[in-house]
Amino acid sequence: MTAPSRLALVPFVSVANMMRLVHHIGLERVLVELAAEVEADFRRWPEFDKTPRVASHSAVGVIELMPTSDGETYGFKYVNGHPKNMREGLQTVTAFGLLADVATGYPLLLSEMTLLTALRTAATSAMAAKWLAPKGARVMALIGNGAQSEFQALAFKAICGIAEVRLYDIDPAATAKCAANLAGSGLRVVPCRSAEAAIEGAQIITTCTADKAYATILSDNMVGAGVHLNAIGGDCPGKTELAPGILARSSVFVEYPDQTRIEGEIQQMPADFPVTELWQVITGQAPGRQSAAQVTLFDGVGFAIEDFAALRYVLGRLKGTGFYDELDMIADPDEPRDLYGMLMRAG
Amino acid sequence: MTAPSRLALVPFVSVANMMRLVHHIGLERVLVELAAEVEADFRRWPEFDKTPRVASHSAVGVIELMPTSDGETYGFKYVNGHPKNMREGLQTVTAFGLLADVATGYPLLLSEMTLLTALRTAATSAMAAKWLAPKGARVMALIGNGAQSEFQALAFKAICGIAEVRLYDIDPAATAKCAANLAGSGLRVVPCRSAEAAIEGAQIITTCTADKAYATILSDNMVGAGVHLNAIGGDCPGKTELAPGILARSSVFVEYPDQTRIEGEIQQMPADFPVTELWQVITGQAPGRQSAAQVTLFDGVGFAIEDFAALRYVLGRLKGTGFYDELDMIADPDEPRDLYGMLMRAG
Repeated sequence: MTAPSRLALVPFVSVANMMRLVHHIGLERVLVELAAEVEADFRRWPEFDKTPRVASHSAVGVIELMPTSDGETYGFKYVNGHPKNMREGLQTVTAFGLLADVATGYPLLLSEMTLLTALRTAATSAMAAKWLAPKGARVMALIGNGAQSEFQALAFKAICGIAEVRLYDIDPAATAKCAANLAGSGLRVVPCRSAEAAIEGAQIITTCTADKAYATILSDNMVGAGVHLNAIGGDCPGKTELAPGILARSSVFVEYPDQTRIEGEIQQMPADFPVTELWQVITGQAPGRQSAAQVTLFDGVGFAIEDFAALRYVLGRLKGTGFYDELDMIADPDEPRDLYGMLMRAG
Repeated sequence: MTAPSRLALVPFVSVANMMRLVHHIGLERVLVELAAEVEADFRRWPEFDKTPRVASHSAVGVIELMPTSDGETYGFKYVNGHPKNMREGLQTVTAFGLLADVATGYPLLLSEMTLLTALRTAATSAMAAKWLAPKGARVMALIGNGAQSEFQALAFKAICGIAEVRLYDIDPAATAKCAANLAGSGLRVVPCRSAEAAIEGAQIITTCTADKAYATILSDNMVGAGVHLNAIGGDCPGKTELAPGILARSSVFVEYPDQTRIEGEIQQMPADFPVTELWQVITGQAPGRQSAAQVTLFDGVGFAIEDFAALRYVLGRLKGTGFYDELDMIADPDEPRDLYGMLMRAG
């Protein structure tokens, strides 16, 4: 059997290589650079093909495909969400993604995205907060101390200048894990015994809990004037974190309304509930925060363009590192119409 | 860095390993077994989540995602269609696919599907013809002698008992390639200088041309009474092969009407043009061929359930062969909420 040609080989970033790449660049630098990539793609929002993700729901979770294209490059992510996985020793969210050349349809990159999703989610949250949170915010409450929490904390430190994180989780072991991981990060870390205690003095409140339920992580009386809410745990139908009263008095910012109305906190609100698209704030077409007393809410559910930006970032950063394998994934006969001949000659 | 756990490793079937697997089993046996798997999944059609594929069109081609699930297993295929690729020495169609466990969302198999798509398309066509073609058909015209053609010929030999294939392509080099590849296959192979010559005496006419255009590979007067048409080249908006008059006097059988009305030959017809779903013929809920004079047409566009069946077949056949690699694709920390700790310990 002859060796496959270059075109037939797709660079693949394994979990081990993604970790090597992150350490090679430095985690906080990755978060800062990812936030810049995501922001750059939000600035050219109208250039993208956009569609709500294609979800396959079951009783215990969801499997989704998230495609997008800017006309030159196509990308998609496979991602699951299975809250009960954690109790079985499995990840709630696992993911991988692909970039392809629109001109040929040939893949350009296959990558793990479990880690990359945590990184891009944190980078996107912090980028949104940079536009929406009160100026000079230094204290963030972090409610839900699971797999996403440390990435959120470090992104808000690196991108928004957060100096103190106040942790709360219904499971004290999760808080202890998060606090231990963030020791030495340069953040002041304050474990708290209740959500009420965690939000004391916080200008930013991040909710990233995992239950697939209409939960009330924050009740209406807990959210004071001027706060920025970063609600990322409510991200599929039937999964919310905030009391509807909070939404009613917040200015709500979203990624892609067609998807967020299905999946986000605003699934609790009428279909015409007013929202602002974050890309319009970034491009100056819509106002962000307008007063110190305003409650701003980033109802983040995760959109395909963020994954696209993250995959392109990885592809660009991969060059010269060797942190990838080459997969013989594309059949590439010498004569393109002779797929059968290629198969027979391999016999 | 500790080695990833078993759960983090996904079996990957490369192009080279797919070719090894096909030779290990035998090509005609693969086609027969694949047809049986596809038919078995058509029999339980109502059990599947079905959606038209999610297409991203550009001026030169299309990239599609084709998901489905039977409630236990989820599968999807990535596939492109770029007719101009052939002139650049690239495949018109390349593909890969994935199976995952619905209960956890964890991937079970990643596989090349360029070869597998050619195999399942041929197996599905021949399976449909087994139900629809005139009894005792022995001669098939094969119009379009590109990458799919030999697979179609061998599937119709193995599954329907075709003894003679009559070849025509607008490019004589394609016909010569197909004829050379089929020499020694046990088929009588007759290269022809026109489509009219190719269909002489044929009970089955297969069209598998690749141009993305409203083409007329068969005009109305070329199709006589009693013929079975296997039209597989018309498979995306703006890409058809048959004159509308042929459709008007044929009994048309389709995979999934919602998708075929967008992509198939019947995109030329009104939205209420009558069609029969193939699965209903197989389960006895709808008639197939009812008379010797009837023109039957399988307007095949390729549906996700066929890929699902093919991937499950590969996964089942893979056991004990060693024809796969294991990809470290899923992050799998010892404590599922400690993704960050896993990353840091790798530093």
